[in-house]
Amino acid sequence: MNRIQQQYAFLTECLKLSEIFRQALLPTSRRRENDAEHSWHLCLMTITLAEHSNTPVDVARVLRMLIIHDLVEIDAGDTYAYDTAGQAGQHEREALAAERIFGLLPAEQGAELRAAWEEFEARQTAEAKFAAAMDRLQPILLNVLTGGEKWREHGVTRKMVLARNQHAKDGAAEVWAHAVSLLDDAVARGLLAAE
Amino acid sequence: MNRIQQQYAFLTECLKLSEIFRQALLPTSRRRENDAEHSWHLCLMTITLAEHSNTPVDVARVLRMLIIHDLVEIDAGDTYAYDTAGQAGQHEREALAAERIFGLLPAEQGAELRAAWEEFEARQTAEAKFAAAMDRLQPILLNVLTGGEKWREHGVTRKMVLARNQHAKDGAAEVWAHAVSLLDDAVARGLLAAE
Repeated sequence: MNRIQQQYAFLTECLKLSEIFRQALLPTSRRRENDAEHSWHLCLMTITLAEHSNTPVDVARVLRMLIIHDLVEIDAGDTYAYDTAGQAGQHEREALAAERIFGLLPAEQGAELRAAWEEFEARQTAEAKFAAAMDRLQPILLNVLTGGEKWREHGVTRKMVLARNQHAKDGAAEVWAHAVSLLDDAVARGLLAAE
Repeated sequence: MNRIQQQYAFLTECLKLSEIFRQALLPTSRRRENDAEHSWHLCLMTITLAEHSNTPVDVARVLRMLIIHDLVEIDAGDTYAYDTAGQAGQHEREALAAERIFGLLPAEQGAELRAAWEEFEARQTAEAKFAAAMDRLQPILLNVLTGGEKWREHGVTRKMVLARNQHAKDGAAEVWAHAVSLLDDAVARGLLAAE
């Protein structure tokens, strides 16, 4: 295969991201959101909210990470944020998936995108912290917009949401504070248990 | 509303992009693709194929255009590429939609994103030409992967695909040439009528 054919093979495989469904519900149709549309919404959040990053970020690098951050779930599946059993072995499954999926690309390009995925996972750079914040804030927004149905279904409490997602403040403290106000409001309205 | 609340109102409204369904089918589930996942796939194409741009491009600017390029369809609906009747009044409907949707943002930010949408539509800058090329190449890929079902359903021929999409070569001539080879192959396999 020539270079464009290899890139098309990768782009074709990645269309499967639309077949990986998450727990969160979309507000209009109330169907579960898939990873492809989730990834798009994180990109939209990034260009809208980048000004609130704790540290100025290179938006192109944030977007690159978010565009590819869930591709490993094509093989490894989506692990629900509050599924501690499902998290066992998650890293190993995802590393194997990264090997296969980024391996479809020309070698140096695959290595670059894999490095972007690893940067996202490690959450050490300012760009990765901001990207991770978007990834945490988005399902909170969806849960608020759909009346907390999935929180209650899974017995998720405000305390659990805070514990699981508070590292979002390392990327975007002001936006995190807004999300906490939405959680407080959800508790006040009886949509989310306090603990 | 404060600034973050305005931005959240915009991000909430834009979730409706997942409810706008296109003609093209996804290869695994064979369901119609929606605008949100389409927009994500164009972003993935961009980071994968940017090296083939006829002119070096600022990838961040291309991504910004592609992330927001279909938001107007939340109000105006998707107009099928080969629906010449549906194209009457399309520009006016989309301009009204842009006014409303980007108008949810703080004024200067809304004006910036609206300018990015207008840049995309005008197809004059190198970034807009490359972004438009991705937007044309992607449904061709989906049609090829799904055996040309939607082409035949709508009576679309190779000649029509070339006429409608050949400006993709203004953005990425080598990738366009690859797409033409896919079309030729589809004709040879009886999946697409020549004319």
